[in-house]
Amino acid sequence: MPSNINSFEDTSATFTGWASTGTANLKPFSYHPRPLGPKDVEIEITHCGICGSDIHTITEGWGKLKNGPCIPGHEIVGKIVATGSDNSPHKIGDLVGVGAMVDSCRSCEECKTGFDQFCEAKAFTYNDTFKDGRGGYTYGGYADRVRVNGEFVFKIPSQISPAEAAPLLCAGITTYTPLKQYGAGPGKKVGVIGIGGLGHLGIQWARAMNCDEVVAISTSDSKRDEAKQLGATKFINSKKPEEMKAAAKSLDIIICTSFALDSDWAQLLSLVANHGKFVLLALPEKPIKVPGNSLISRGVSMVGSLIGGKEMVAEMLQFAAEKNVRPWIEKMPMNDANAAVKHMMEGRPRYRIVMETETASHA
Amino acid sequence: MPSNINSFEDTSATFTGWASTGTANLKPFSYHPRPLGPKDVEIEITHCGICGSDIHTITEGWGKLKNGPCIPGHEIVGKIVATGSDNSPHKIGDLVGVGAMVDSCRSCEECKTGFDQFCEAKAFTYNDTFKDGRGGYTYGGYADRVRVNGEFVFKIPSQISPAEAAPLLCAGITTYTPLKQYGAGPGKKVGVIGIGGLGHLGIQWARAMNCDEVVAISTSDSKRDEAKQLGATKFINSKKPEEMKAAAKSLDIIICTSFALDSDWAQLLSLVANHGKFVLLALPEKPIKVPGNSLISRGVSMVGSLIGGKEMVAEMLQFAAEKNVRPWIEKMPMNDANAAVKHMMEGRPRYRIVMETETASHA
Repeated sequence: MPSNINSFEDTSATFTGWASTGTANLKPFSYHPRPLGPKDVEIEITHCGICGSDIHTITEGWGKLKNGPCIPGHEIVGKIVATGSDNSPHKIGDLVGVGAMVDSCRSCEECKTGFDQFCEAKAFTYNDTFKDGRGGYTYGGYADRVRVNGEFVFKIPSQISPAEAAPLLCAGITTYTPLKQYGAGPGKKVGVIGIGGLGHLGIQWARAMNCDEVVAISTSDSKRDEAKQLGATKFINSKKPEEMKAAAKSLDIIICTSFALDSDWAQLLSLVANHGKFVLLALPEKPIKVPGNSLISRGVSMVGSLIGGKEMVAEMLQFAAEKNVRPWIEKMPMNDANAAVKHMMEGRPRYRIVMETETASHA
Repeated sequence: MPSNINSFEDTSATFTGWASTGTANLKPFSYHPRPLGPKDVEIEITHCGICGSDIHTITEGWGKLKNGPCIPGHEIVGKIVATGSDNSPHKIGDLVGVGAMVDSCRSCEECKTGFDQFCEAKAFTYNDTFKDGRGGYTYGGYADRVRVNGEFVFKIPSQISPAEAAPLLCAGITTYTPLKQYGAGPGKKVGVIGIGGLGHLGIQWARAMNCDEVVAISTSDSKRDEAKQLGATKFINSKKPEEMKAAAKSLDIIICTSFALDSDWAQLLSLVANHGKFVLLALPEKPIKVPGNSLISRGVSMVGSLIGGKEMVAEMLQFAAEKNVRPWIEKMPMNDANAAVKHMMEGRPRYRIVMETETASHA
């Protein structure tokens, strides 16, 4: 196995995971992590969810890998096995999670206002470089261990199982953030486009926030019953013009978790109420074709939203614990990472694959 | 001259204007207006501005004409020559203006909250049909007279000349509304893309609202000096990557008054600050290609804005009067309507053509 060339590495430790070199054929890969800093923790990984972002990265759909072999995975759950000298909230043995970010500057306007996901010095959990002066690349959770700054490590509430906690750390926060930010709650009607890894959580959040209506919008009738089980008050098949027409201009907030490049944007935007918000969560690999009049004629906004800040992650985990919001998951062994990725790419897991390490199966 | 077939017409009155039948070759056209209702006023037109919307309509770029020959024009100024029985704020001889709308339902949520431009029963000033139960088509201001509901008629402040008032009624309110709605003022940096009929007013509004910065963005250096004269604190040539790059992520609100279908949207959106708003005002004839990441990676909104409600129009006229915001205009005789339209389509008037009727020249 090749080793990462990193002058900032701790050669006394070796972490091993599954890495992409640009195609959906992951290979074992080992690296030396950064030395354990005073604020760092080391986590023995038990679970890691598979996110759509992993696939876009693995296959280089979003662009070339930045740092050579890339271990993906940013829905990480595990146990703390080591802490730095200055890590008051964390202790060895804690069950914790790591999401899509592992660092930010803490001092810019974004960091100070809870939007550290927009910090210019942030580090994504994988395929990125630390900007904190200590150097080094970031590697994700399709691995046995990870070392990260304790401020980006979240205690998993006891009500939530480790496997179910994993998808909350990206799919969960990605859907929770815009609903909170744009005021989902009583008096509001919310739509969720796409019932998959993100959407099935979006429906549950909106319901738990007591929105007046929670409308699931899908291209497939096969999701109709499950959408209701998840808490949707209504289901729309977006391929049926009469169902779309009946719901025209009715939704205050729509979160769009999935779409095709040939999606009929005028039709999707027609569901937004005047002055409403259409929130893009899924990042397409090509530009989308927006008909100007869909926005202008009714004061509609199309807005982007990216994961969520670390305070929001902590809040979301508590909210999930209290309101019993849980992902629907399929477990697979991390040893079968390639089969899991294939299942994600080909099939449509209902609704999130969570890989388990050998540590988890021995626990 | 052919006459409009309209069963709701007042055959005792005949109004005459310049009409399109689908191409930029306007012809004289006469019609009988609707009978003067209790709330209506009749206006002898002295001035009418030429708006970009007129051109899109005249040439059928936005779609086929709806009601046969169409008299465009929705930047109308003139004197009241007749009033209905119930028209308390208006009296004969008043100098008044009419903008892009002449009716709405007054009872829907939009009307009740000052957004009557989004009322489903609204009537645009031309190429539209009244929905108030009295029937009839709407005809615009490239004409000698117009009869409209007095609630959509605005008194022109004495400080503003009739010719200068005209462009405020569409170009003015279109640019004023989003700046007000999205909080332009001290502490905000505002960008105006396109320095033309709309943009040259947008710059003046933003300056009059005391924004921290007012950045004019144009494809042409020839506008640099004039932008400064209009009140811009900074000018960016959008074809110069280094100027664009230097201003990246700096503007809280951008109003986009002009663009080409091949505009580089990623580059234009790069100017918006995190969480900022990019407001579309100009309606393109084809969908625009929005790179999702330009919105997602920084929480940016793209929002549409349409003219403004009637309360906002009244407020805007007062603001213009007090803050000395005036369009830069070129006057042409309405008898030369075709030459004026040609000048608008070919040249780049600096910055608004206002046509004068014979009534104006005799005044």
